[in-house]
Amino acid sequence: MSNSLSDRLSGYARVASDLGVDAVALVPGPNFARALEHNFMSHERPFLIVIPAHGPAAALVPNLELGSWAGVGFDGAVFDWRDQTGYGDAFAQLMAHLNISSVAVEGQVMRVFVHHALIAAQPTLKIIDGEREISGLRMIKTSADIAAMQEAIDISERALHRTLASIKLGQSEKQIEQTLIKFLFDEGADDLAFSPIVVAGDATAMPHAHARSDYMVKAGDAMLFDFGARKNGFAADITRTVFLDHVSDEGRAVYETVLAANMAGLAMTRAGVTAHEIDDVVTSVLEASPYAERIRTKTGHGLGRDVHEAPYIMRGNHMPLPAGTVYTNEPGLYDIGNFGVRIEDDVLITQDGCETLTRFPKELMVISC
Amino acid sequence: MSNSLSDRLSGYARVASDLGVDAVALVPGPNFARALEHNFMSHERPFLIVIPAHGPAAALVPNLELGSWAGVGFDGAVFDWRDQTGYGDAFAQLMAHLNISSVAVEGQVMRVFVHHALIAAQPTLKIIDGEREISGLRMIKTSADIAAMQEAIDISERALHRTLASIKLGQSEKQIEQTLIKFLFDEGADDLAFSPIVVAGDATAMPHAHARSDYMVKAGDAMLFDFGARKNGFAADITRTVFLDHVSDEGRAVYETVLAANMAGLAMTRAGVTAHEIDDVVTSVLEASPYAERIRTKTGHGLGRDVHEAPYIMRGNHMPLPAGTVYTNEPGLYDIGNFGVRIEDDVLITQDGCETLTRFPKELMVISC
Repeated sequence: MSNSLSDRLSGYARVASDLGVDAVALVPGPNFARALEHNFMSHERPFLIVIPAHGPAAALVPNLELGSWAGVGFDGAVFDWRDQTGYGDAFAQLMAHLNISSVAVEGQVMRVFVHHALIAAQPTLKIIDGEREISGLRMIKTSADIAAMQEAIDISERALHRTLASIKLGQSEKQIEQTLIKFLFDEGADDLAFSPIVVAGDATAMPHAHARSDYMVKAGDAMLFDFGARKNGFAADITRTVFLDHVSDEGRAVYETVLAANMAGLAMTRAGVTAHEIDDVVTSVLEASPYAERIRTKTGHGLGRDVHEAPYIMRGNHMPLPAGTVYTNEPGLYDIGNFGVRIEDDVLITQDGCETLTRFPKELMVISC
Repeated sequence: MSNSLSDRLSGYARVASDLGVDAVALVPGPNFARALEHNFMSHERPFLIVIPAHGPAAALVPNLELGSWAGVGFDGAVFDWRDQTGYGDAFAQLMAHLNISSVAVEGQVMRVFVHHALIAAQPTLKIIDGEREISGLRMIKTSADIAAMQEAIDISERALHRTLASIKLGQSEKQIEQTLIKFLFDEGADDLAFSPIVVAGDATAMPHAHARSDYMVKAGDAMLFDFGARKNGFAADITRTVFLDHVSDEGRAVYETVLAANMAGLAMTRAGVTAHEIDDVVTSVLEASPYAERIRTKTGHGLGRDVHEAPYIMRGNHMPLPAGTVYTNEPGLYDIGNFGVRIEDDVLITQDGCETLTRFPKELMVISC
């Protein structure tokens, strides 16, 4: 991992070459933050840096960001624009300066208004989606990246321990969610990595449900926590499902099935296995169970500056995974109207195996409350 | 404001008609949340609803969201897709079903990968940026919207009072930011409306700077707080600039100039004035001062489900503002390397004037700490 701005930008120039396009364009988001080692917001204002395959990079910067931009140490051409006059001229000047005919963009990050502004400035410009290759540069984590992620995970786990110790039957999902959030910040989170999922009972069967103010947790409920702190630019993403007061036979059997799938994935993870192979092993455990029709998701996704990033751990993705990749191993079984179980670890792939960065216990946990 | 799903969707059908396109497409974000009265996440998965100018709406839904989707009460066609098989077929089926040749999208929300998936499914599809018209349906707030915003603002102001009372010289910006965040959740925030800006000294001159761990606040510093709680789907956005221990003559003069600009904007705000007129009056106060070269931003932006939304309060935007609009009045003066001052209120436009939803004092405040 290189440490100078020009070294980092040259990585994106190589991506442009590899993709056979003239340049790569980045907008504020995880790649932008990695490339520039600064965090910028975008909101309604276009802000981008274009790195040609050959030659110096150039940037289009909202005028109000020039003070912060000075700290980046960028020595290429900068075209700034003011709210009062708009950004059309700045795009035209940028494109005239660059003299390119094609560009790869981050399809998962760049919004359509920037795409349209590029086309308005240069109607013949060919824009391709280079998300996979551009974000691929973030896939192998440095030791500093991993240290930041471990800190985010440790904060998250301490917050979950404190939350579980505080649950009382009759509290709303929303109350318990607020408790978790307070503990996350109290333990040192910079921010939430994403809006937490704190749900019980039937809502656990919906993978992305939200805490309800009018659902009070009761004895026998499954309760699912999917959440994470953000620390130093990196995200944690952990899920644990517990049972309140007691657990049914069905709850126990489903839990043990999901845990077996999670463990099977960990057991076969090492550098060189493909995303397809991991998902195939994990999903096969679920498919072989009596609960196969409750499968609704892939095994997981990469984790780093973004909560969901490459590699996506699913059948059909035959990318061999290199050492240094961090992915989420999060099998689940979801029975709509009944309950769901998900167990999610953050897993660092190593040469000979893997290291589970999440250390929170995974044995079936029945909470006395 | 209509209360049934079909009434809300018919508003988007009218936007399509007005724009002369066959349909409007919405992706998860503030308009999607308003239309469906449910919150969905998107991440790497395409998820959209298409509302034709004439005829029933249709949706493309990630399979894992079907459980949550059932709660929406949507009775149009649904094309779901699973991670393992991808979304190409679902897009093809959706477009074949719809039989449209043009669509307006939210340019500030839809990302390029969805744009590309639409074009892949139907290469002749004409996609226009209908951000202004689509999001325009959120511009006039209902009384329920305003109540939610007022709650978010009240939470934010209580948290700021508690934070200011706790500041000690020698604390880092980051420590003070963490204090503010803890108080926000303690006061009842559902989430942060955005990552807060809590900065002092020279960093106040950068409109979007971030709290530093290695800058300790000192006597004489300007200190700027730009932040807000999110509550029931709505955002607060308030800025106050205070001085620690004492204030220089320059600090006082700049502060009074910015406050005069803010007050001039409030004094002339009523239904029917244009965004241009407000910005012109506010900016003219700054331009007439000895600090004209420190102007770096427009006056403000609309506020609601999104932190930055229409109307944008700037010269050149000649839209007359209707009663029920909420905008931020946030003039500032920024002297790079020295200090900056911004004062931001959230303002509800009424028939005869305006109501300032932010009530936090604006007199120059010198904090004893």
